[in-house]
Amino acid sequence: MKTLTVPLSASRAYPVLIGAGAVTRAAAYAPPHCAIVTSDRIRTAAAAPLAQLRHALAQADKKHFVLELPDGESHKNMHSLNRLIDGLTEHRLGRDGGVIAYGGGVIGDVAGFAAAVYMRGVAFLQIPTTLLAMVDSAIGGKTGVNHPGGKNLIGAFHQPCAVLADPTLLATLPPREYRAGLAEIVKYGLIGDAEFFNALHARYLPPASAAPPPPDDLQWQQILIEASVQAKATLVAADETEQNGARALLNLGHTFAHAIETACGYGAWRHGEAVAAGLVAAAKLSEKITAFPARDTARIRALLAAMGLPTRPPSDIAADTLLAAMTMDKKNAGGKKRFILMTAIGAATMADASDAAVRQTLNELQNPS
Amino acid sequence: MKTLTVPLSASRAYPVLIGAGAVTRAAAYAPPHCAIVTSDRIRTAAAAPLAQLRHALAQADKKHFVLELPDGESHKNMHSLNRLIDGLTEHRLGRDGGVIAYGGGVIGDVAGFAAAVYMRGVAFLQIPTTLLAMVDSAIGGKTGVNHPGGKNLIGAFHQPCAVLADPTLLATLPPREYRAGLAEIVKYGLIGDAEFFNALHARYLPPASAAPPPPDDLQWQQILIEASVQAKATLVAADETEQNGARALLNLGHTFAHAIETACGYGAWRHGEAVAAGLVAAAKLSEKITAFPARDTARIRALLAAMGLPTRPPSDIAADTLLAAMTMDKKNAGGKKRFILMTAIGAATMADASDAAVRQTLNELQNPS
Repeated sequence: MKTLTVPLSASRAYPVLIGAGAVTRAAAYAPPHCAIVTSDRIRTAAAAPLAQLRHALAQADKKHFVLELPDGESHKNMHSLNRLIDGLTEHRLGRDGGVIAYGGGVIGDVAGFAAAVYMRGVAFLQIPTTLLAMVDSAIGGKTGVNHPGGKNLIGAFHQPCAVLADPTLLATLPPREYRAGLAEIVKYGLIGDAEFFNALHARYLPPASAAPPPPDDLQWQQILIEASVQAKATLVAADETEQNGARALLNLGHTFAHAIETACGYGAWRHGEAVAAGLVAAAKLSEKITAFPARDTARIRALLAAMGLPTRPPSDIAADTLLAAMTMDKKNAGGKKRFILMTAIGAATMADASDAAVRQTLNELQNPS
Repeated sequence: MKTLTVPLSASRAYPVLIGAGAVTRAAAYAPPHCAIVTSDRIRTAAAAPLAQLRHALAQADKKHFVLELPDGESHKNMHSLNRLIDGLTEHRLGRDGGVIAYGGGVIGDVAGFAAAVYMRGVAFLQIPTTLLAMVDSAIGGKTGVNHPGGKNLIGAFHQPCAVLADPTLLATLPPREYRAGLAEIVKYGLIGDAEFFNALHARYLPPASAAPPPPDDLQWQQILIEASVQAKATLVAADETEQNGARALLNLGHTFAHAIETACGYGAWRHGEAVAAGLVAAAKLSEKITAFPARDTARIRALLAAMGLPTRPPSDIAADTLLAAMTMDKKNAGGKKRFILMTAIGAATMADASDAAVRQTLNELQNPS
C-alpha cells in the first residue's frame, strides 16, 4: 500500500491510498454516518469489494446506507443531484455525516457535488472504481454536473478527506472503460514528464523485434496510478481553485474533448476517448502556434492508437459545431478561446488560439488527406 | 457613506458600504459582464435605484442583463436555481463575469448560490433592498435554497466581493417587511451588546411620560445598519464556515424560527417574524437551562411587540410538529438538539436541550395561562 498526499494548505491536505485492499481502509476516514453513493451497474459489477467496504464500516460501528444513481454521463445532471439530496434528507444525514463515492468519474462528481452543497458541505470520501477516476477525477476536489449549455457548468470545489484507489477493482472494469483511463495517463506524460511518456511508449509500442506488450497487471497499474496521482496532486496543490493557471495544464486536450462530448450528446463518447482525440488535436494545434514538432504528434497518435483509443474528432460533426461548443469553455477570458498547448512532449503552456487555427486543425483531422 | 470591512483572511476580505447613494458605487466592484438578479416585485417597487444601478454600470462600460425570479420564500428552491443557471448560460456569462443580487434575503440567497456553483464560482455583489438583507443575510457568505426537508438545506459558503447597503431603498419597503428586519437587529443586541439592546428599548419603548417614538428616519436606519453589520462581520470573520461555534451565536432564535417556517410552509411567516417569536422562545428556554431572568424575557417580548412583531409560535401547530422540524437543524450533533441560549441580555452560548424542555417551552408560549 502506497500513501501519497495532496499537499493542500492547513486542514485540507488529504491522503491517497494506492494498492490492493485500499477499499478496506475506509473506516479510518469515514464519519459515523455515511451515504455510499454508487450506481446499479457498479453495485453488480463490483459487488465483492462493495461488500468488503460495508463490512469494514459495520465493524467500526459506522452507520451507512446506499444511494444509487443511474449509470453514465447522460445522468450527470441536476436531476441526479436532487435525487441524492432527497436521499440524504430522507436518511436524516446530519452535518457531522458524510458521503462516500463508490464509482467512476460520474458518481464521484455528482456525489462530491451533493457533499459540497448538502448543509453547505459535509465530509466526502472518494473510492474510485474506474481507472479514469483513480488517476484523475477522484483527485483534486472538482465536483459538479453537466448542463445542456456545457460540461461541468455547475459545480463546486470540495476536497475529499481521503481517496482510496484499489487496483483490484479494475479486474471487472469493461475494457472500453479501462482504455478511456489510459488517455488521462498519457496526458500526465505530455504536460510534465517526458520520461513517463517514453516509458508508456516503450510498454505499449515495443520495437517490432521485441515481445508483444504484456497485459496490464496489478504491478503495472500500481505504477500508472502512482505516477498519475503524484502529477495531479502537485498541480492541484499549486492552484487549488484554478486561480493562477498551474492547474489549467491538466486541461490539455480537454477543450476539444468537452466540445466533442457536448456536440455528440453526453455519453456517446467516453470522456477518456474524447480526451484521446483531444490530445491529438491539441498537438496539431500546437504545431501551428508553438512550433510543436509534427513527429511528436505522430508519436502521441501512435501511442493512443496502440492503446485502442480514437485519435481524431468524429468526422460527422461540423467543425463549426465543435467551435461553437468551445465558446462556453471555463478557461476563456475576454471573449478569446484559450487552449493548453505543448512546446515539446513534457512541456505545456496556456495560449489563445484564433478560430481560424482551430477550424483548420479540426479540418485536417476530420478530413485526412 | 460609511465603509465597514468583513475582515476575512487574505483575498476574501470585503467592504460593506452603508449610506444613501451606495447603490451608485456598484461599478467599482462589478466585473465587466454581470447578471442582475431581482424579482418582478422589486423591479417595480424599487425601480428608480435599479435604473441608477444600471446607469452606473453602463457609464463604466460594464455589460449587464437582468434575470427575474418570482418573489418570496416559497420560490427559494432548486427550481429557481436552475432558472438562474439557464439564464447565465443563455447570456454566455464567462468565469470572468459575475452576479449582482438586487433584492431581499431570498434573492440574495438564490443568486449567491448560483454565483457559487456556476462554473464552480463567479464573482458576486450584494445590493440588499430590504432591512433584513442589509443587516443580516447579505453579510457573511451564506447562500442556498430550501428543501421540503429543511430550510437552507442545500447551499454553499460564497463570500461577496462587496455589499452595498443603501437605506434610501427602504422608503418603498412594505411595513411588514421592514418590521421583519428589526427582529434580526434585536438579535445582535441579545447575543453580544446589552447597551445596543437598551438603546433599542429606549427608542421603541419610551417612558409613558416622554414623547412617542419618532418614525425610523435615514439617520436612525444608518445607526441600526452600522451596528448590525459590525456585529455580524466580527462573528463571521471569527468563524467563516461555522467550524468553531462563534458564528453559531447568530442562530439565536433561529432553531425555533426555522421550525415555524418549515411547519407552516415557506412564506406563510416572514423569516424575521419567525425570528421574533423564536427570540422569545429562546429566552423562555434559557430560563429553564441557563437561569436567564424571566424579567429579561419580558423586556425582550415587550420590545418586539412594540416593533409590531409576533412574540409566540402559532398556536395551531402542535409542539411535536415543531420539534420534529428541528431534528434536521444543522447545529445538531450526535442526535442531540442544540440551541443558542442566553445567560443574560448580551451574552449567548450554545447548549443542548432535551425534547422535554423544548416541548414545555412551546406549550407555555402556545397556551399562555
